[in-house]
Amino acid sequence: MVLDPTKHADWEIAQEAETRMKTVYQIGEELGLEKEELLPYGHYVAKLDYRRILDRLGDKSDGKYVDVTAITPTPLGEGKSTSAMGLVQGLGKRNKSVIGAIRQPSGGPTMNIKGSAAGGGLAQCIPLNEFSLGLTGDINAIMNAHNLGMVALTSRMQHEANYTDEQLAQRNLKRLDIHPKKVEFRWIIDFCAQALRNITIGIGGKADGFTMQSSFGIAVSSEIMAILAVATDLADMRRRISKIVVAYDKQDRPITTADLEVDGAMTAWMVQAINPNLMQTLEGQPVLVHAGPFANIAIGQSSVIADRVGLKLADYNVTESGFGADIGFEKFWNLKCRYSGNKPNCAVIVATIRALKCHGGAPIPVPGKPMPAEYKNENVGWVEAGTQNLLHHIETVKKAGINPVVCINAFYTDTDNEIKAVRRLCEAAGARVALSRHWEKGGDGAVEFADAVIDACEEPNDFKFLYDLDTPLDKRIELIAKEVYGADGVTYSADAAAKLKRLSADPDMATMGTCMVKTHLSLSHDPKVKGVPKGWTLPVGDILTYKGAGFVVPVAGTISLMPGTGSDPAYRRVDVDLESGRVTGVF
Amino acid sequence: MVLDPTKHADWEIAQEAETRMKTVYQIGEELGLEKEELLPYGHYVAKLDYRRILDRLGDKSDGKYVDVTAITPTPLGEGKSTSAMGLVQGLGKRNKSVIGAIRQPSGGPTMNIKGSAAGGGLAQCIPLNEFSLGLTGDINAIMNAHNLGMVALTSRMQHEANYTDEQLAQRNLKRLDIHPKKVEFRWIIDFCAQALRNITIGIGGKADGFTMQSSFGIAVSSEIMAILAVATDLADMRRRISKIVVAYDKQDRPITTADLEVDGAMTAWMVQAINPNLMQTLEGQPVLVHAGPFANIAIGQSSVIADRVGLKLADYNVTESGFGADIGFEKFWNLKCRYSGNKPNCAVIVATIRALKCHGGAPIPVPGKPMPAEYKNENVGWVEAGTQNLLHHIETVKKAGINPVVCINAFYTDTDNEIKAVRRLCEAAGARVALSRHWEKGGDGAVEFADAVIDACEEPNDFKFLYDLDTPLDKRIELIAKEVYGADGVTYSADAAAKLKRLSADPDMATMGTCMVKTHLSLSHDPKVKGVPKGWTLPVGDILTYKGAGFVVPVAGTISLMPGTGSDPAYRRVDVDLESGRVTGVF
Repeated sequence: MVLDPTKHADWEIAQEAETRMKTVYQIGEELGLEKEELLPYGHYVAKLDYRRILDRLGDKSDGKYVDVTAITPTPLGEGKSTSAMGLVQGLGKRNKSVIGAIRQPSGGPTMNIKGSAAGGGLAQCIPLNEFSLGLTGDINAIMNAHNLGMVALTSRMQHEANYTDEQLAQRNLKRLDIHPKKVEFRWIIDFCAQALRNITIGIGGKADGFTMQSSFGIAVSSEIMAILAVATDLADMRRRISKIVVAYDKQDRPITTADLEVDGAMTAWMVQAINPNLMQTLEGQPVLVHAGPFANIAIGQSSVIADRVGLKLADYNVTESGFGADIGFEKFWNLKCRYSGNKPNCAVIVATIRALKCHGGAPIPVPGKPMPAEYKNENVGWVEAGTQNLLHHIETVKKAGINPVVCINAFYTDTDNEIKAVRRLCEAAGARVALSRHWEKGGDGAVEFADAVIDACEEPNDFKFLYDLDTPLDKRIELIAKEVYGADGVTYSADAAAKLKRLSADPDMATMGTCMVKTHLSLSHDPKVKGVPKGWTLPVGDILTYKGAGFVVPVAGTISLMPGTGSDPAYRRVDVDLESGRVTGVF
Repeated sequence: MVLDPTKHADWEIAQEAETRMKTVYQIGEELGLEKEELLPYGHYVAKLDYRRILDRLGDKSDGKYVDVTAITPTPLGEGKSTSAMGLVQGLGKRNKSVIGAIRQPSGGPTMNIKGSAAGGGLAQCIPLNEFSLGLTGDINAIMNAHNLGMVALTSRMQHEANYTDEQLAQRNLKRLDIHPKKVEFRWIIDFCAQALRNITIGIGGKADGFTMQSSFGIAVSSEIMAILAVATDLADMRRRISKIVVAYDKQDRPITTADLEVDGAMTAWMVQAINPNLMQTLEGQPVLVHAGPFANIAIGQSSVIADRVGLKLADYNVTESGFGADIGFEKFWNLKCRYSGNKPNCAVIVATIRALKCHGGAPIPVPGKPMPAEYKNENVGWVEAGTQNLLHHIETVKKAGINPVVCINAFYTDTDNEIKAVRRLCEAAGARVALSRHWEKGGDGAVEFADAVIDACEEPNDFKFLYDLDTPLDKRIELIAKEVYGADGVTYSADAAAKLKRLSADPDMATMGTCMVKTHLSLSHDPKVKGVPKGWTLPVGDILTYKGAGFVVPVAGTISLMPGTGSDPAYRRVDVDLESGRVTGVF
């Protein structure tokens, strides 16, 4: 029945499977949901009323908590979402009660170069169109909430420029005296729109806005996306949104959304978005989709709320943290689990033989270009050398005190000798290793993988954070750089050093987490350096503050909050089948 | 049970009524919908699969078709949406099978000055939060589809600037050679963001976009919103989106979304949005909500698809066209009905005594300021003088060959003498007149109104367009200016005259409608001139072309596609009740 993944695009496989997928009502019934807890959006997607569910199941013990992370990926990705879906399907084949918890993709990469983020082959999240094209509107809600904040900020600056104190008082307004060079907030849009990266706004007369430099970031980099990921309930979300610092005044005092009297209205746009979305795998297991990607420039985790719901509804909750364990898992470990209080039982590290070869010395593959010939032939030497990157990430997971499972995400060009080499090195380092063929065979190909995870979850573990919240900021950054990235130390730009000093004196710091911004393409800050770089220091160029989300954000290297659309973007191949209304070409 | 509208805000009345509203499944059952035709979005809103419904009911005869329009409004509005909801509720009280078809509000006015557009008092569309805050995401879908077009345009300009013809050919691209001063497309956002009205984009290095002037318009002014309003099915929408002209090349040839290879992907973002949304009145009659407002700068009509569905599902389909009959009704008449082929049976002209006084000489009220004292005392002279504006709109409706019904939307300060004066003058002009108290009493207050509409619909009518599609563009504009606005003639700026000449020579013109842009606050182009201005000419400053929607858009006077947020915006008073999750303060 299922289409052959070696002959069909992911979207073709998804659409064929969608002809016989379960309705969301059936999935809700299988999960034991009450009618009011399931808010359908069409017949195949629903939002879950997290609050009713958590109220009803508050006393039930949590299921096992599994995070799927990866080695340092090539620009093509390691198939982490595919492996997360494969694991859910494999656990389903073992008759386990299981739920997946993944992130909603951003329209930027989907329309640009990456295509869908729903997995691939026979391990996918469906219905694919809804997943890839805005789902139930959470990212749009973030866009509206966020940009309303910018409307409030920019129109306030204009009115303060045009009106006297007395005229402001007639409108019950007190001058905020925002410093136009100290505006921290930017606009957002959910595409890779490099033309909006640096802009001048407010050109024209006095009714056409305050003239100043401004910028658009990609929607998923929004502080409100971070808040959606870590908020525990609506009251918590409301409180966090009100603390977002949008600018500083001329005396260098922070100006918040609450000062702009827009925090309530911003929250109003988010009341539906706080509920996680229920979908399904190709094989009918439930999947929660909530919050957004980009662990390099954002927290990039599925939401605390989705995981809490998943842990109550199933015996296994499989979540995913973006990119490699240095980036995604480190934030899962020290930020998300700290806010949620949930303790993971095991972390899966996904690796492809392709990426291990790349870390071992093979030429770096380029998206959209043919794969270099080196990847088609056996080369155990490259694989062994590249496995050092994998071993580094195994050590990271062990530092968190939890049990690592290596998943070799199989590809048809892999050879037995290459796989044996990885197994040998990883098992020697104390990790379980499973070869998994979920891409080719779905859940049937992932039972070895599922068994390894089941075993790892049964073992005791000793989960602990890398740093306590009373650790000074510079020490935290140093710990992450040395213990997770393998750097020798940290250097700061003058600007970052000044901010470090100011932040270290801020009493609010004690309750804030550290959310690093760094490339995902290397353990270091330089995307070109593969393997396990030695003898380097991490340059921190800037430190942002997300007071609402509760993050201090050190920025390592040069990385933009607005990616660019390439010259051969995916949207060229996207269309609509006019007969069925289904979208084609999102692969 | 129902709250007293003289003591409670609209949102309080709505929330109280929502505690006992019907589920959308029940409404679907009452409409005889099949399960697959109703796509729930939560339990109280649904999208309707228009195609299944129209396929099933294709042979059924249409219900009566009623349009609700108004006199030239004051800046406070005439309660047109309120009256449309009141009429639906009044027809419900008369046990008629009835459905409303209204427009989704824009986040701009909702968060700025206007508040909700769901009606008011005891005549509203609910659930109010969903209605006012993005509903099922149609405007967001338009935003994504539209802005993806801008991403494609601006990134293409950048890549063409950076690459040689040969490098472009390697990516299977041919140079489009877009003239940077002839870019017609702008970005959109669904707020009143005057700071984004005039911007410079692409500042920075060669990977940071092409540097040029650009602009944001409000989302509802998007050509894609116009397309949503007039499209008859997905294939029609796909075809129209592919014809949007985004710029001209250096040889002055048009560049379309199809040239950018983004038309399919833009349509992909719209596949859910094409289905109209099902909601209900405070008294449980079905209401379809689809497409957007702003008849001054856009077509501003609910969609052709929603009306087609409504006309099949009920004996009366009550739709609404924005602002006064010169603006909204003229577009309903000559654009929407031309594209749909539907013939209206009657048009309601809503008037308040307040607005008639304003047209008769009373001081113009200002939103957010206290009502001038003149409006609290009887003044039959002002009312009689102001009724000239109403009589003008009655004549406009009669020119369309359909039966006018005047609805006096009652307010507690109205006196019997004032109402008698309006009745006498309008009845002498051949219009039915009904006093309606739906704001205060709901459907019970609107039975006289409903009866007048029922009677008007039984009478024969002779619907005819103001112009045929073979009428030259200048003659069409002249006809609208003279026959609908009461001008003596039309003048053109040099730019508009040049465009008029070019367009008149364009063979595509023959299939395009004329969609005027003009202030709604006066019959003339000058918002300050009330009543029925005499001895003036209409200045056309620009002529835009929406080839996708199929509109030529003459712009009269100075009017912006991006409104501004005032100094005391509505968002200051919007918040969320953390216990119930309901939004407060959207009034």
